[in-house]
Amino acid sequence: MEKGLILWFTGLSGAGKTTISRIVAEKLKSRGCKVEILDGDIVRENLSKGLTFSKEDRDINVKRIGFVAHLLSRNGVVAITAAISPYKEIRNSIREMDENFIEVYIKAPLEVCEKRDVKGLYAKARAGEIKQFTGIDDPYEAPDNPEITCNTDQETIEESVGKIISSLEKLGYLA
Amino acid sequence: MEKGLILWFTGLSGAGKTTISRIVAEKLKSRGCKVEILDGDIVRENLSKGLTFSKEDRDINVKRIGFVAHLLSRNGVVAITAAISPYKEIRNSIREMDENFIEVYIKAPLEVCEKRDVKGLYAKARAGEIKQFTGIDDPYEAPDNPEITCNTDQETIEESVGKIISSLEKLGYLA
Repeated sequence: MEKGLILWFTGLSGAGKTTISRIVAEKLKSRGCKVEILDGDIVRENLSKGLTFSKEDRDINVKRIGFVAHLLSRNGVVAITAAISPYKEIRNSIREMDENFIEVYIKAPLEVCEKRDVKGLYAKARAGEIKQFTGIDDPYEAPDNPEITCNTDQETIEESVGKIISSLEKLGYLA
Repeated sequence: MEKGLILWFTGLSGAGKTTISRIVAEKLKSRGCKVEILDGDIVRENLSKGLTFSKEDRDINVKRIGFVAHLLSRNGVVAITAAISPYKEIRNSIREMDENFIEVYIKAPLEVCEKRDVKGLYAKARAGEIKQFTGIDDPYEAPDNPEITCNTDQETIEESVGKIISSLEKLGYLA
């Protein structure tokens, strides 16, 4: 497959973005796609070191991810991004930049994400040790019309992955 | 052609990096290559806004260019970079990251670049209106063993372009 796209995961910390995006990446590679994962942490290290979690800096970070994802997408790569990307306006600006933009909302209630708390970040945020934590003292703006929604509190990881792959088939990105 | 590479232009402001890299990009596209130009200005706008021209910030900027160029290169794209990139150590660290790294030294004596002064930047630097300007009050470290050197004070633009294209053929990047 030579058609690139941006597969833009968005959702709360702990909703399952990283886990699901990695499995999707492997599935796409096994089907012959070129794939790059632009994970939130990788990008903060390589493109955005020094940026804070203020709205302004988050927007700059997400714009940079979008810039790089677009360069990859228009060269036939599936660029998978997996940053929280909490603000709707910036996500939509990237959608406008790239005609092959697929938004994947990894959705789980805050209570569920907080209970999972895989990285222990919610506990720290509740204790005030981390500030501007999305869902606690910083907003998350859910997408209005994401191409794909995975309700990770109601479906298994395999079901979520299957939903994404079959959506890409229906949308004509996968044979 | 599916083999990607990083074609890393380096040289003083006014040496001819942008002019030559754009013509090379067109030639490569006409021969079926996927090409992206990561020009210094484009990158400063999209990846490095707010960075200064201190050594530390220049290094961060050049590392970011390298990170993005590598993502493109390993996906079959010819990533052409055309930033001054004055420091040898950082250029070499990118060379170590990507096995398909071709350094193109666009070489012209400072006096020649200053006389051309296409953007009027040397005059401003001499007048002290711009600080930390490479060649004036900031160093330029020439490459020790660039794969290609274009002496733009002695050869025409066409000759420089021809030299780069034939080097890529010899190195096996172009049929």
